[in-house]
Amino acid sequence: MLSRFDEWVLKKVHDAAGNPPLRLALANGPEVRPQGRALGSIVFQDRWVVARLVVDPDIGFGEAYAENKLRVEGDLVAILTAADKSILERGKRNWFPSPADLWLRLTQQNTRRGSRHNIHRHYDIGNDFYKLWLDEQLVYTCAYFPSPESGLEEAQLAKMDHVCRKVRLQPGERVVEAGCGWGALALHMARYYGVKVKAFNISREQIAYARWRAAKEGLDDRVEFIQDDYRNISGGFDVFMSVGMLEHVGKSHYSAFGKTIQRAIGDRGRGLLHFIGRNQPRPLNAWIRKRIFPGGYTPSLREVIQILESPNFSVLDVENLRMHYAHTLEHWLERFENSVDEVRARFDERFVRMWRLYLAGSAAAFRAGSMQLFQVVFAGSKCAALPWTRAYLYEPQVEEDQSSMPAFG
Amino acid sequence: MLSRFDEWVLKKVHDAAGNPPLRLALANGPEVRPQGRALGSIVFQDRWVVARLVVDPDIGFGEAYAENKLRVEGDLVAILTAADKSILERGKRNWFPSPADLWLRLTQQNTRRGSRHNIHRHYDIGNDFYKLWLDEQLVYTCAYFPSPESGLEEAQLAKMDHVCRKVRLQPGERVVEAGCGWGALALHMARYYGVKVKAFNISREQIAYARWRAAKEGLDDRVEFIQDDYRNISGGFDVFMSVGMLEHVGKSHYSAFGKTIQRAIGDRGRGLLHFIGRNQPRPLNAWIRKRIFPGGYTPSLREVIQILESPNFSVLDVENLRMHYAHTLEHWLERFENSVDEVRARFDERFVRMWRLYLAGSAAAFRAGSMQLFQVVFAGSKCAALPWTRAYLYEPQVEEDQSSMPAFG
Repeated sequence: MLSRFDEWVLKKVHDAAGNPPLRLALANGPEVRPQGRALGSIVFQDRWVVARLVVDPDIGFGEAYAENKLRVEGDLVAILTAADKSILERGKRNWFPSPADLWLRLTQQNTRRGSRHNIHRHYDIGNDFYKLWLDEQLVYTCAYFPSPESGLEEAQLAKMDHVCRKVRLQPGERVVEAGCGWGALALHMARYYGVKVKAFNISREQIAYARWRAAKEGLDDRVEFIQDDYRNISGGFDVFMSVGMLEHVGKSHYSAFGKTIQRAIGDRGRGLLHFIGRNQPRPLNAWIRKRIFPGGYTPSLREVIQILESPNFSVLDVENLRMHYAHTLEHWLERFENSVDEVRARFDERFVRMWRLYLAGSAAAFRAGSMQLFQVVFAGSKCAALPWTRAYLYEPQVEEDQSSMPAFG
Repeated sequence: MLSRFDEWVLKKVHDAAGNPPLRLALANGPEVRPQGRALGSIVFQDRWVVARLVVDPDIGFGEAYAENKLRVEGDLVAILTAADKSILERGKRNWFPSPADLWLRLTQQNTRRGSRHNIHRHYDIGNDFYKLWLDEQLVYTCAYFPSPESGLEEAQLAKMDHVCRKVRLQPGERVVEAGCGWGALALHMARYYGVKVKAFNISREQIAYARWRAAKEGLDDRVEFIQDDYRNISGGFDVFMSVGMLEHVGKSHYSAFGKTIQRAIGDRGRGLLHFIGRNQPRPLNAWIRKRIFPGGYTPSLREVIQILESPNFSVLDVENLRMHYAHTLEHWLERFENSVDEVRARFDERFVRMWRLYLAGSAAAFRAGSMQLFQVVFAGSKCAALPWTRAYLYEPQVEEDQSSMPAFG
């Protein structure tokens, strides 16, 4: 009798997820199978795990996975991609915030003080941990793979060149970077493009590492790493660069973000925003906000274009690189799994499962198309240097010699 | 005494325009000069012309120019560009609609019936007129100049290839074109990319010409020219293409436009919108609406991204080609001036001055940055064929052999 009830509930959950090609089961037997072949299985420890999922799908799933009360049998990324796709296609999900969601919104606000706390929780958990699975330069944003076969190190270098060339950095220019991670891009810009960089970040550990690297590489006269909030960025820059930081700004601070850009570059400058976006405005998965990225919000493209609208910036170029992020995340996940024993020793099994779900779930979201990766290039109304076409971005690049870049008028 | 007053008014007008580097004068003497060197002069026939300008700047200027009550001394495009720039930089213009503006909004609505009337007024004034100054294929939209030195014919061909390659047309696919002008792009797609095209337009003269050309070139089995409203486009297409037509849709019909796209290509298709846009939402110049493009509205990029948001399309690529439109318009203006005697004979001097102001003023708006030209590529959530990078767009193209296009997966 109860087993019939369990099957009925599993069926409801399967329906609510748009009937993905997955088998759902309880560890003690009851199950529901998809119409066609199943890509894999999700096995719940007991009916209470399912009940939690019904009450709050995002947090219920994440917590159950982290606590090992939910087993995924089969390829994790493929299974999450299938689930994401079918939920997306069903398209009926209601986006009313759950109580847990409201609680997160209330407690994870991105005020100056809140941001420090939110950023600290993710980025200050140990540089050595990130070194286990990021590329050698610790670039923690979507890479640009010239071909799907390119390696991660090569693709991160290509990404840094891609964004530098998109804004056409010229020797001697002043660049401000909002959110600089461990400093790879700031150092790359100074070294290969001859610019002066002020790079802002509120993560203590990242800034410490970046300063150490700048000194070691003799670039500390050209790159200044500043442990401060983006809202304190001053004026006088030619270029505003922000790669993978807008996700931490939060919707209610977009107007402040726009004003910061305007103050930084005025109407003669130009800039680039590289960020995880959406087709439609949606809250970021509540479990990801609870456990991984406190205060995170991934905007729709429209919301970002709107940031640029009031300061009268012209959008010059938008590129969607979502498949490159899926690919990047799969590289990270592979390296993570190769170091999983060290991660477990440093933290615990629950941490391992949390981060595995975050990396695999993000790869799945980009594969399924529920997340996008946008690079937006913009310029002030008096910016003189507009490129004639984008062809120069795809011409072979001369190593360590930027003098070959074409001049535009 | 009155001459002092005239000077004071001219000074006020000069101030209101942000003090452009131009001399303003009345034909009988009073004048105001800019601080630096003047690029040229605007000479008003009498103070009543200035008064009209004060009351309604857009319509006042346009009408006075058309009626030859306002003389521009110097290079027309350069002078209008300087005026546009200084008005833009002053940035204090109020956008409250004038009574004339409200009247235009009321009488030029883009309902099905209204659109027929609006389109008829611009596009049905005689194919022979447009042949005088457009390229040989009558492509009446922004061209794509591989280099600024490219000719107009070459640049229009390059534009057609650019948009075809952006959406990666494959032989056998079904394409719907919303607003097809004289049919050049529809025929180009069918001929060089092997697709089947249904091309919609409500201009009688354009459709007649396009059908004649299709028959003459033996393409009428692959291209169907349909004299009907875009709102009547049905489903079953792989690609939605619209080049230079969104400007006629009108803000209040954007939701209908979005639904049309969704109906046409569902969530597996892809599309391209090529349109004149803005950095910020602004009504189109009232004189242009009164005399040239009834019912016209050039949206901000954000407004267009918003059209694509509700149907859950992913934006893949945005390119801003505004300098190419300035260049295109300068080509058109040059050809127009070379045929000005024929235009005058066919119409009258007032018509000549109206169209000269429209072409030169548009070139100026793109030069000054008060208008933008956007190409937006988008795809449904189940669209399988996303390009890996945009590099293929910039590889040399093999003439009349599209089989060399890379396959994406």
